[in-house]
Amino acid sequence: MSLKVYRVLEKVEVIVAYHTYVKLVNKLIQKEQEIISTGMTKEKERCRQAIKSAEQGKKVAIISSGDPGVYGMAGLILEMLLQQNLELDVEVLPGITAANAAASSLGAPLMHDYAVISLSDHLTPWEVIEKRLHSASESDMIVALYNPKSSQRIEQIELARQILLKYRSPTTPVGIVRKAKRGKEEVSLTTLEAMLTEKIDMLTTVIIGNSQTFTAQKLMITPRGYSL
Amino acid sequence: MSLKVYRVLEKVEVIVAYHTYVKLVNKLIQKEQEIISTGMTKEKERCRQAIKSAEQGKKVAIISSGDPGVYGMAGLILEMLLQQNLELDVEVLPGITAANAAASSLGAPLMHDYAVISLSDHLTPWEVIEKRLHSASESDMIVALYNPKSSQRIEQIELARQILLKYRSPTTPVGIVRKAKRGKEEVSLTTLEAMLTEKIDMLTTVIIGNSQTFTAQKLMITPRGYSL
Repeated sequence: MSLKVYRVLEKVEVIVAYHTYVKLVNKLIQKEQEIISTGMTKEKERCRQAIKSAEQGKKVAIISSGDPGVYGMAGLILEMLLQQNLELDVEVLPGITAANAAASSLGAPLMHDYAVISLSDHLTPWEVIEKRLHSASESDMIVALYNPKSSQRIEQIELARQILLKYRSPTTPVGIVRKAKRGKEEVSLTTLEAMLTEKIDMLTTVIIGNSQTFTAQKLMITPRGYSL
Repeated sequence: MSLKVYRVLEKVEVIVAYHTYVKLVNKLIQKEQEIISTGMTKEKERCRQAIKSAEQGKKVAIISSGDPGVYGMAGLILEMLLQQNLELDVEVLPGITAANAAASSLGAPLMHDYAVISLSDHLTPWEVIEKRLHSASESDMIVALYNPKSSQRIEQIELARQILLKYRSPTTPVGIVRKAKRGKEEVSLTTLEAMLTEKIDMLTTVIIGNSQTFTAQKLMITPRGYSL
C-alpha cells in the first residue's frame, strides 16, 4: 500500500470492499468509519453502494487488492459514473499489482518486456485469452498469469502451459507466488514442465520466464541485458 | 512509494541512486545518511558502490523510480551478487511501476490484459522489440510503452505507432503521461493517429488502448467486460 492510500484511508468516512479485502486493512479501520462489505461477485453492488454514500456527501473509498486499475474496481466505478452521468469527484490511487509484488518475492523476473494475462474466462472469451497466450509466448515476453485457477475452473492453467510449451523449453523457470505480500506468502520456483504439481488457485500469481530467465540460489532473474 | 519502503529508507545508513532519484526522495533523507549518487548510465558503478558499503557492514538501499523490478536496478544487483558469489542479505521491495502510475492518472486503461514493452534498443535488439509490438497489437492487448523516445533515439516511437496501426483503428485512444505521480505530472489523451504531435520523452509513459478502450470526460477506460 502506498503512503498516499494510507493517508486517504485515514480520512474517508466509508470504506467499501470485498469481505477478504476488509480483513487486509482491518488494523487501519477506525471506529467511526462505516464499512460496506459484500461477496466476491458483487462488484456492481459495491459500486452502487459507494455511489449512494458519495451522493449523500460522504467521503468514500472503494478498495481493491493490488492495483485497482488492473482487473480491479477502478474501471467499473468510472463506467458506472459515466453511465449515470454523475459528477462526483473520483480519484484512482494506484497500488502494486500482483505481478510486481510476486516478482519482488521471486527475485527479478520482470526485468524485461512482459505480458499480464488473466486466465479467467468469466468475462472474456477463452479464444481471446488463448490468442494472447500464443502472442506473448511467441514473442518471448515474460508472462504473468492472474486468476490462474479456481475450484470450478481448473483446465485453463493446463491449456496455458501447453501453449507456452509450444514456444519455450520445458526447463523455462516458472515462479509461483501465493498471497503475494499479503502475509503468509508462499513462494515456489519450478519449471514449465513441472509447474502443475504446485498449488495454484485464485490467490496465486504465476510468472513464466522468457528464454533468458534463469534461477540461482532460490532467485528467479530475467537479465536486462547488461554485460557483467 | 509503499509504506514499507518509507520505513526502510528511514533505517538505512547509505542510499545509492541516480542523481534524479535522489531529488525525488530528498525530503526523506536524514543528515547522518550517506548518499552515493551517479549519472544515468552508471548502473553497474552504483551496484559496485552499494556492494562495497554493504560489505563494510552498512545497511544500504539502492533506489529505482517506479518498481525496481521493472527495467530497474533489482535484476542487476542480484546478478552481480550471484556473479561475485557474495552472500549479502538482499530484499527487493516492489513499487508502483510507471504503467500503473500513468494508468491511474488516465482513468482505468489497464483493466484488461496488457503488455509492457520498452522501446529502448540500447540493451535489446530492435527486431526483438518489433516482434513484441506486433504480437501485442495482433492479440489486442493494451500496450504500455516505456522509454518511448530520447533526444538521440527518436524513430522508435514512430515505428511502434506504424506497427500498432496495422492492427488497430487510427482512432484508438492513446494516453500519454509525463512524470507520472512524480509532481508536475502532464497528462494528455490522444489517438494512434494524432499521438506524435504530443510531447514524448524519456520521462513519458505511453498507453495504447485495445479495441474496446474508450475515452469520455477526460478519462481513458478499457472495460473489464461487465454488463452495466
